[in-house]
Amino acid sequence: MKRVGIAILGLGVVGGGTYEILTRNREFYQKTQNVDITVESVLELRRERALSLGIPEENIAGSIEEVLANPNVDIVVEVMGGVEAARNFVTLALKSGKSVVTSNKELLSKYWHELERLARQRSVGLYYEASCVGGVPIIRTLLDGLQANRIEKMTGIINGTTNYILTRMTEDNADYANALKEAQRLGYAEANPEADVEGFDAAYKLSILSSLAFHTKVPFQKIYREGISGIQAADIRHGKELGYVLKLLAIGTNSQEGVEVRVHPAFIKADHPLAAVNNSFNAVLVHGDSVGDIMLYGRGAGAEPTGSAIVSDILFAATHSDVQYSTFKNTASAEKDVRFITDFKSAYYIRLNAVDEAGTLAKITGIFSKNGISIVELTQKGSCVEGRVPLVIVTHETREQSIKNTVAKIRAAGTLGTVEAVIRVVMG
Amino acid sequence: MKRVGIAILGLGVVGGGTYEILTRNREFYQKTQNVDITVESVLELRRERALSLGIPEENIAGSIEEVLANPNVDIVVEVMGGVEAARNFVTLALKSGKSVVTSNKELLSKYWHELERLARQRSVGLYYEASCVGGVPIIRTLLDGLQANRIEKMTGIINGTTNYILTRMTEDNADYANALKEAQRLGYAEANPEADVEGFDAAYKLSILSSLAFHTKVPFQKIYREGISGIQAADIRHGKELGYVLKLLAIGTNSQEGVEVRVHPAFIKADHPLAAVNNSFNAVLVHGDSVGDIMLYGRGAGAEPTGSAIVSDILFAATHSDVQYSTFKNTASAEKDVRFITDFKSAYYIRLNAVDEAGTLAKITGIFSKNGISIVELTQKGSCVEGRVPLVIVTHETREQSIKNTVAKIRAAGTLGTVEAVIRVVMG
Repeated sequence: MKRVGIAILGLGVVGGGTYEILTRNREFYQKTQNVDITVESVLELRRERALSLGIPEENIAGSIEEVLANPNVDIVVEVMGGVEAARNFVTLALKSGKSVVTSNKELLSKYWHELERLARQRSVGLYYEASCVGGVPIIRTLLDGLQANRIEKMTGIINGTTNYILTRMTEDNADYANALKEAQRLGYAEANPEADVEGFDAAYKLSILSSLAFHTKVPFQKIYREGISGIQAADIRHGKELGYVLKLLAIGTNSQEGVEVRVHPAFIKADHPLAAVNNSFNAVLVHGDSVGDIMLYGRGAGAEPTGSAIVSDILFAATHSDVQYSTFKNTASAEKDVRFITDFKSAYYIRLNAVDEAGTLAKITGIFSKNGISIVELTQKGSCVEGRVPLVIVTHETREQSIKNTVAKIRAAGTLGTVEAVIRVVMG
Repeated sequence: MKRVGIAILGLGVVGGGTYEILTRNREFYQKTQNVDITVESVLELRRERALSLGIPEENIAGSIEEVLANPNVDIVVEVMGGVEAARNFVTLALKSGKSVVTSNKELLSKYWHELERLARQRSVGLYYEASCVGGVPIIRTLLDGLQANRIEKMTGIINGTTNYILTRMTEDNADYANALKEAQRLGYAEANPEADVEGFDAAYKLSILSSLAFHTKVPFQKIYREGISGIQAADIRHGKELGYVLKLLAIGTNSQEGVEVRVHPAFIKADHPLAAVNNSFNAVLVHGDSVGDIMLYGRGAGAEPTGSAIVSDILFAATHSDVQYSTFKNTASAEKDVRFITDFKSAYYIRLNAVDEAGTLAKITGIFSKNGISIVELTQKGSCVEGRVPLVIVTHETREQSIKNTVAKIRAAGTLGTVEAVIRVVMG
């Protein structure tokens, strides 16, 4: 039976979950995978945390050098989080000939290709299933399950924190601040929630997933990003009445014209496959030229779901004789320049507090029309308050720039009222 | 660039789809997978079918021997269907040192282990992603994406024909005969629909999927099987009123007590993740010890979705240096005897035409109670017709045998009325 030794860098939530799974299922992996996997070393400054997990004193290393000098360590699992120290440790691990399994989406989206080059040079593995959508094996699926397909579109709910907050706002009519507090209380959101609520986390993941799906490098910086902190309860309520559900979507499309990548809140129809993905669940809907629509759904975070992805990577590395050190089987082709589309097309939901005067409506709709935007639906929501009428407009698909021009014109007019919300509506 | 030659045995729907994908995407696979895949030989008695797909005359073989003698053929794709000829051809292909990709679930569920032994002896590959759930890469996911998990339960809608029929019955209040006719007209059901509607197709697939999920051999013969041809429109309607949707489920569970495998129609709650899987779509819900609930959803049949699975297998074989000739990484462990549970536990929906006499209800509920079955819900559906009252009873979970005894007792009494329908209710 093959023996494989593991080092775990960082015993936070995910590191602890990984240790727990490897320990609980050691005999199971001997039986089913014909490998004996043991944790030979951990790097964790909080010694008592390591001891409380039952890790023997002698396996707690004092430095990365000590971890890497251990000849029993074959695979280094990086679950520290953060970027610079992680980059340094992963680099040292690859240089010392160890394969690396990481859950670090920020590290990957920023230094993936540097690390990949290094792994390729040293012929060691670099695995990162756990970096995207927790336990859902979306990366293995893109690499080895759907590779026959030209992936044309990918739409995902890939951040559990924001999905939990939006679910609370939708189901309980909570406002953003209260839903965030509830998420923090339950451990779904961090004390500083910025990385999640402003869409950074989803954008890191989309950078990785769209690179894989489109076989080309999609840098994080190319992703349009907009978070949910500005979402008002009123818009979720009005959307619901119109048959929409609000989600933070990560969208990637690939066509003749180029690659389009964006993370932003969006209304989707209540019967859209992603509309039923609630609470901290995640899902990715993929459209391939031969497979058509396919969806993967599951827990996007948490100790054991993310640990499931890490341990599956460890087992893949241990039971396949080839080493996965490169995402791209044809590096030359993947590194060719790609055109990124920045002037998106989308339908829009716009809420205004319009001045209640004869002719206002005609002037507002006139501005839409002059910018080439046709209106699908216009509804007055509630009655006149202090001379203002709440209006909700849903448009046909149009260029982002046309909406920006329209909103600017309405604002510039000064006499028409205020634009309270502009939210994209995703139909496909 | 690596060159890989393919032979396709059978140019039916799936064979045609496979040829079409390989031809359309040849250059794409060169760019993204660094392999050049060409169809070097086809075996198809209808020459004109081959010619109409654009296959050059000289690539149309006259016999399996001619196919296998072609030195350019590395991988043989068996998409003929049927069992005996397919078994013979696949055996010959493996013996002549060719890897095999097959979509043939019946062949696999009957001769899998014989073929696997042969592939192992010859060190050639045996791939079968296309045998289950069309384009949905459930097999690759079980092998290489969720292998960290002890899979405790798997519940699937894995037959498109029956799901289409049940969707029509549910949405249009159609009866079984008309829904079947509609499915046949659209090509979702065959002229002789038995393999689909009686649950054989789902049972073949469950035999394969549960073997993989539970790391043990689950013979087709061990699967309890019941089809949908006896389902009445009235029960779908009554179920809907009670908040249930009727689906043909394939269920596998694995626990300390043993393995339980069954295919039968079942009511599930309208908010169950599988309840929204409609028409010819398929989905598999898997529960693993670390990943929790995870679902894969997509098209379970059709030329291109199934072709997607076949071509993904071809690409996996062409781009991974190890050969997948065995499902089980630890054959000795997988071949150990397993205990199969045959006395299932389930909740039940029972519809009776009860005799409208004082005391009947007490007698009927008394029989349930004597058999240790507690009733969740008892509703009279409609009014008395010819001295009979329609009654619907939903029970708590109980042993299958207790329900059988109860129904037998009610029937034996002779004076209580008739049992019109007995349908399992699946809660989990």
